[in-house]
Amino acid sequence: MRVSGQSYRTIWVAGDGRTIEVIDQTRLPDRFEVARIRTPADMASAIRTMVVRGAPLIGVAGAYGLCLAVVEDPSDDRIQAAYAELLATRPTAVNLAWALDRTRSALLKAPPTERVELAYGLAAAIADEDVAACAAIGEHGARLLRAEWDRRGRPEPFHILTHCNAGWLATVDHGTALSPVYRLFDEGVPLHVWVDETRPRNQGQLTYWELAEHGVPCTFVADNAGGLLMQRGKVHAAIVGSDRTVRNGDVCNKVGTYLKALAAKDARVPFYVALPSSTLDFALPDGDAIVIEERAAAEVTERAGVRVANPAFDVTPARLVTAIVTEKGACEASESGLARLHPELATDRA
Amino acid sequence: MRVSGQSYRTIWVAGDGRTIEVIDQTRLPDRFEVARIRTPADMASAIRTMVVRGAPLIGVAGAYGLCLAVVEDPSDDRIQAAYAELLATRPTAVNLAWALDRTRSALLKAPPTERVELAYGLAAAIADEDVAACAAIGEHGARLLRAEWDRRGRPEPFHILTHCNAGWLATVDHGTALSPVYRLFDEGVPLHVWVDETRPRNQGQLTYWELAEHGVPCTFVADNAGGLLMQRGKVHAAIVGSDRTVRNGDVCNKVGTYLKALAAKDARVPFYVALPSSTLDFALPDGDAIVIEERAAAEVTERAGVRVANPAFDVTPARLVTAIVTEKGACEASESGLARLHPELATDRA
Repeated sequence: MRVSGQSYRTIWVAGDGRTIEVIDQTRLPDRFEVARIRTPADMASAIRTMVVRGAPLIGVAGAYGLCLAVVEDPSDDRIQAAYAELLATRPTAVNLAWALDRTRSALLKAPPTERVELAYGLAAAIADEDVAACAAIGEHGARLLRAEWDRRGRPEPFHILTHCNAGWLATVDHGTALSPVYRLFDEGVPLHVWVDETRPRNQGQLTYWELAEHGVPCTFVADNAGGLLMQRGKVHAAIVGSDRTVRNGDVCNKVGTYLKALAAKDARVPFYVALPSSTLDFALPDGDAIVIEERAAAEVTERAGVRVANPAFDVTPARLVTAIVTEKGACEASESGLARLHPELATDRA
Repeated sequence: MRVSGQSYRTIWVAGDGRTIEVIDQTRLPDRFEVARIRTPADMASAIRTMVVRGAPLIGVAGAYGLCLAVVEDPSDDRIQAAYAELLATRPTAVNLAWALDRTRSALLKAPPTERVELAYGLAAAIADEDVAACAAIGEHGARLLRAEWDRRGRPEPFHILTHCNAGWLATVDHGTALSPVYRLFDEGVPLHVWVDETRPRNQGQLTYWELAEHGVPCTFVADNAGGLLMQRGKVHAAIVGSDRTVRNGDVCNKVGTYLKALAAKDARVPFYVALPSSTLDFALPDGDAIVIEERAAAEVTERAGVRVANPAFDVTPARLVTAIVTEKGACEASESGLARLHPELATDRA
């Protein structure tokens, strides 16, 4: 996507062919800064502190973390150690484990002398696949959104609500939930996006920033406001991303997503979830089995002596999801729906 | 209630018998400060900027605002002008209109020479009635909460979730939603309170402060967390206050309440609403008719150039409310339930 007229991805290999550069998302929206990442430990720290964030992006970041490990030392031991360090950074999103497993497995099969080139090639392939998947999600998701816009008699504007940031900043490019929004907007549909603040990390500021950079009309609201907006008819569709979607179609996403899905159901607003298939986890039967990451109290309040709980995700039951959109198309949020769309994953059971 | 060992109400008449003193709630929890209010304009500003806040408290504050008006000038014109100025500060809570109507109506019937003493007497009576109502709400609400604790086999702790601040700071003393919590705690039930941050004004900080001052175990969470807590069985009951509850039992309260009520319903967690009968508005048939106050964008973000919507309240449909608790007891959230508990209001229709 473009920032001040220049094209960017969120992560890339620097001119030296080794160092990884990323947009530092902890500086946005105040400053647009590029961070340089030189070691697997730096990458683990960047993922943990959310310099890079968003399920698809942290998968790619994990793969590049293994690249940096084999640059240091292409041995099996170094790969295993870096794998463990990177995997431990964020327990909930499945993309990280998926990208790390895929990269480690290929590296361990290759001779150590070939591992550096192989690693960078694999990471680049994962990044390019993510870009292609997000572009395809845009196409399929825009079709669903346009159908809803038509069904409602083409309201102007067509109000879409989103939670957290599942835009291009959460991926390598295009985004998941926002990819269909960008596409629909570029096709000329007069849309407007309600952007949830997304406490405690305020990722809504990233969403607002990237939508505004693209020229999409949007309004920033406290997370609490979405229920009222839906009950008073001011939301025509909701679309979010996912950090892990499991076999029965239960969707794990940024904490607060479930509350919006409940409100959407109550107001008969369609609730779409957009994700690349790398986010699907058929090994888990349902959302109850998902480990929810607990993050630092200081994200919620820096006041001393206040006891805080800070779960980063929640689970939206499949029954509240109107459709899941992947790079392959759209389906019902159910085991059969997902299996029809992704037969290659359906046999991948625990 | 007690602050550092000393008893306080949230509002009282100063030693001069005229000036009003209030706990400045914009300074809490950082500093405990008393603000002096000398004119109706000062009182209007204190209500608008939430130096005093909470539906029951702003009713009493409104009555004292009319006291300050008649001290300046006991004429009908001055009373009408102050009434209009005070009423315009917050459109959603009905208590303000109720207390202003009651005070104005009594004042206009009295000779101007008697209006000052009458006004202070009326305002004191409204304040004392609020204290008595909140104490009675504590008794009735604690009975409901204890029954739920028993029904669940007396879990330790008994987890209660609340949204916004409906504690003693929102009233003259005791609180509405928190009055039963304090009572149950004082009776020795091992309870724990999940305190919603309540963006954008963060009234959860007030709730945390007053619960902690009383020694009640509590945990501060982002508003987004409540859904997960409920779906994972970590909430046994939810209780909130109300700014206006209408004839069919629809409950208007701080924005975000509706989302928690939806989650409570989905997780079969009882959702109680506690309010003094001055919050009931039988003139409105249902929640759709309630005007929702839109507050300043700067409450949500002070970032320049960001378009913001900031509705302060939402409506929880009666079907999501397990019971309404008033000073008279508990009832179903319905026209017949409310009319049985409050026959004196049931004929008061638009």
